[in-house]
Amino acid sequence: MVADIFARDCSSRSVVEAVAGKWGTLVMLALGEEPRRFNALRRRVDGVSEKMLSQTLQTLERDGMVIRDVQKEIPPRVEYSLTVLGGQVAARLRSLVGLVEDEIGAVTAARLRYDAR
Amino acid sequence: MVADIFARDCSSRSVVEAVAGKWGTLVMLALGEEPRRFNALRRRVDGVSEKMLSQTLQTLERDGMVIRDVQKEIPPRVEYSLTVLGGQVAARLRSLVGLVEDEIGAVTAARLRYDAR
Repeated sequence: MVADIFARDCSSRSVVEAVAGKWGTLVMLALGEEPRRFNALRRRVDGVSEKMLSQTLQTLERDGMVIRDVQKEIPPRVEYSLTVLGGQVAARLRSLVGLVEDEIGAVTAARLRYDAR
Repeated sequence: MVADIFARDCSSRSVVEAVAGKWGTLVMLALGEEPRRFNALRRRVDGVSEKMLSQTLQTLERDGMVIRDVQKEIPPRVEYSLTVLGGQVAARLRSLVGLVEDEIGAVTAARLRYDAR
């Protein structure tokens, strides 16, 4: 069977939702920069709540995008990083987000035109 | 000012949410294939409600991704297509989604491992 995101029950839909959703995108990009601990990640992903960050990381770990590495220190040190697949996904997200950031002026102009109609 | 998706109030966040959200992704990909009328789009984006499709199209039109073209026939014929920017965004989404579709086996295996822990 071949995955097809247009099919209602294809699991690729839920994966794309996880990696490209509101917080998923930002967590993937932040971990694409460097591995990070929970609190460092929370500072980088401005505005995310502890609960949403924790849920997002769990989903991304379950989908094989993120590794949760617990180092046996006292207190235990937990670091999050991307898997190989996670890195490939993050690179594609970076390309999408970079385009949107570069073109934000055009988008803002389109919004003003639309709202003035 | 330079757009930065990590900043809480940067409007690039809402743009990425619109194009890469659950229905936004599918609508962008479907219109990346060919321009479509509302009902054809609804058939292609399996599972979307009339209300959600209509809202998604409005947001994407406001953001300058989608053109809503009304042809003066009786009854009026309305066709949706991508703008130039929308086409560039759709190409990047296609690259992301293609990777996820190709790697769905690895994701499914990761999920099974996670759930068995």
